[in-house]
Amino acid sequence: MARLNELTATEAVAGMARGDFSAADLMQACLDRVAEREDDVRAWAYIDPERAMAEARAADAARERGETLGPLHGLPVGIKDIIDTADMPTENGSALFEGRRPNADATSVAALRAAGAVIMGKTVTTELANTNPSKTRNPHNLEHTPGGSSAGSGAGVADFHMPLAVGTQTGGSVIRPASFNGVYGLKPTLGLIPRGGALLQSHTLDTLGVYGRSLEDLALITDSLSIPEPQDPHSYDGGRGSLLAALEQPGPSRPRFAFVETPAWDRADAGAQAAITDVARRLGDACIKETPPSPFDRILDLHGAIFAGENAHYYGGFLRDRPELLSDKIRARLKDSYDIPARDYIEALNEREVINDAIEGLLTRYDAILCLPATGPAPRGFETTGDADFNSPWTYLGVPCVSLPRLTVDGMPLGVQLVGGRGAEGRLLRTARWLDGFLAS
Amino acid sequence: MARLNELTATEAVAGMARGDFSAADLMQACLDRVAEREDDVRAWAYIDPERAMAEARAADAARERGETLGPLHGLPVGIKDIIDTADMPTENGSALFEGRRPNADATSVAALRAAGAVIMGKTVTTELANTNPSKTRNPHNLEHTPGGSSAGSGAGVADFHMPLAVGTQTGGSVIRPASFNGVYGLKPTLGLIPRGGALLQSHTLDTLGVYGRSLEDLALITDSLSIPEPQDPHSYDGGRGSLLAALEQPGPSRPRFAFVETPAWDRADAGAQAAITDVARRLGDACIKETPPSPFDRILDLHGAIFAGENAHYYGGFLRDRPELLSDKIRARLKDSYDIPARDYIEALNEREVINDAIEGLLTRYDAILCLPATGPAPRGFETTGDADFNSPWTYLGVPCVSLPRLTVDGMPLGVQLVGGRGAEGRLLRTARWLDGFLAS
Repeated sequence: MARLNELTATEAVAGMARGDFSAADLMQACLDRVAEREDDVRAWAYIDPERAMAEARAADAARERGETLGPLHGLPVGIKDIIDTADMPTENGSALFEGRRPNADATSVAALRAAGAVIMGKTVTTELANTNPSKTRNPHNLEHTPGGSSAGSGAGVADFHMPLAVGTQTGGSVIRPASFNGVYGLKPTLGLIPRGGALLQSHTLDTLGVYGRSLEDLALITDSLSIPEPQDPHSYDGGRGSLLAALEQPGPSRPRFAFVETPAWDRADAGAQAAITDVARRLGDACIKETPPSPFDRILDLHGAIFAGENAHYYGGFLRDRPELLSDKIRARLKDSYDIPARDYIEALNEREVINDAIEGLLTRYDAILCLPATGPAPRGFETTGDADFNSPWTYLGVPCVSLPRLTVDGMPLGVQLVGGRGAEGRLLRTARWLDGFLAS
Repeated sequence: MARLNELTATEAVAGMARGDFSAADLMQACLDRVAEREDDVRAWAYIDPERAMAEARAADAARERGETLGPLHGLPVGIKDIIDTADMPTENGSALFEGRRPNADATSVAALRAAGAVIMGKTVTTELANTNPSKTRNPHNLEHTPGGSSAGSGAGVADFHMPLAVGTQTGGSVIRPASFNGVYGLKPTLGLIPRGGALLQSHTLDTLGVYGRSLEDLALITDSLSIPEPQDPHSYDGGRGSLLAALEQPGPSRPRFAFVETPAWDRADAGAQAAITDVARRLGDACIKETPPSPFDRILDLHGAIFAGENAHYYGGFLRDRPELLSDKIRARLKDSYDIPARDYIEALNEREVINDAIEGLLTRYDAILCLPATGPAPRGFETTGDADFNSPWTYLGVPCVSLPRLTVDGMPLGVQLVGGRGAEGRLLRTARWLDGFLAS
């Protein structure tokens, strides 16, 4: 049997339900792993082992008292440090917020606690969830970046510090770390997971997402997180069903995939191009190369216009009032964004719906879009967190993406990204389950 | 008895229902007035008397056949020439669109036809519904502007060319001409009246509105126009009830008014200030001066940021591709708008909801906001269509406004503006009915 900290979340839930081990046993195994590895991996912005153990024991006591238990009861979860927690600091990876202690839990954190999860600690984010690299290192090779901005969430799940973690994506901050660290990652539809109490850098793009060690784990935690938030106009306003139940339903016996290179194709390493092309080849006539019509060719610039305009709105005050507390990298990026014209921003908002219509059209003929999750495996060094250009198109459209840890290039992990239609996480995960099995065999 | 072309719409409907006169009689009276006055007033961009008479006769024939008749059956309506008509040109007041013939009716025009209205012709708009004055003149004094941009709609109803007309407001283009020409005008909640097939210059601001000779007339035509338009994200998504039925219900016996000077107060003429202050004084303790909290003090700039950003998006192509077909005035205004930063635009979108919450708070204590509809009566000359600063705050918020033709300053009409909460046209019109009676007595 695997060590407790290496179990998937669904295995851990079942083991605790059977009485094979307690939440305290599970937490102890996770904390032992953190003690062993944290000096190298540096996944945590804040962790208090005594508090975490006390909460795990409280979870055990609730079980013993026969209380009604939520679906995540006793599971340790890492929370990206741009998401507020009432009982731990939330510093947004920035000197601007040093020592900040929020008054209340973020909506997502409150939802996890309500489902029984134990908030194990706060995971490292890049500065303001932007592109300036963090202290975290890739557990597969400590000389490589873990990606960003959800660096600690991706690396921590990969390195068996905890079974589940929450991150956020504005460019490629959930899916790229999933790919780089070799874990499962889901960036759902914009607004499916509430973002109240999370640092906003772009309301049209910022999306909460999750990491786990199986597709079932992604479904399990997303089900507890997926609640409407009426005060957020971008809260997803379609229906919500159980993704775990959707995953138990039969999926397509022979799903069809649209292989989309995206306008970022030429930026990808030869090794990554070869690996994803080989996946497409192995799928045979179930996978057809497709190129969505214009303005899809301009999608990176369109994403950039939204990001720049909204980021200047949310972070412009930092640049004006406290520039000395920003890194050179963020300062330069904000200066570039500061005067982007409203007309470019408005055009990008409008073209988003035009492209989404084309994607919806594709998804009447295919079960999912297949594409690279990154330009290649995690780059060596810490000058950059890698390139988000294979992620930002889908973040821009607000469509769900999943990364499957099924490829290896130059000895480092590389994911396989599948993309679905807005609000269609169930279909996406069923299709992903099929492909995950196909690639494992 | 008044001449037929001077009847209110509800009187005309009743007269035709009783058989006192036919739709053809009514149209003939209107056309006779046009023939008599059009050389002076210049309200029409397009009118074909034979076609209008033929349609009126067809309405009479339908009545004789015993067909089910809509609530506007046989009523002549003027349509601002930025709203598409399948059977007449729609030139948007611009050389860019000279000779343009749309393929289809605008949603609003189709709704009017479905309700039995006879589209009498297209009324003059300023160039692209913007600030460059039109050829139309104020029927109360031909040396004065009728206002804009809905110049022909306001002047035509005032001069008894037709009982009803449709206009649009992005700054002050419905309420200001209502005030200047001495007619009743309603700019309803953003998106209450569908705008498909109307020229867009700012999707957050552009609002269709109506002119008539009584509050009942405004309710009558708005009821036929108030339909959801799912493909427009700004279509009002609250409920819709009959405003005519709402007007028949008892209103507040002693309504309370919040007198709001607005940040434009210092721009108003002394005569206009005195006239509205006198209204407030006559209302006694039923009218209290209120100043909404900041950022209400910045509302003119916030409206300006939305207008500039969206107008650069919609009209920027005209400036780039066909500048020689734009007037100097529009060209200069577009150049000023062209590079407004996205951050200012986004801030203005966000502050809109902050201010609206404050206005909703006021409207729990008051039945309506009372304020000037313009800086004064219609200015002499044709260099300008007047100042929209008493209108643009409410257009920005998307709240309904009505102008009552109850004041006279320097021998020219001036309206009294009442403002209500989003979607609360019924309450606003009942309150307006009370004030209209109070001011008439």
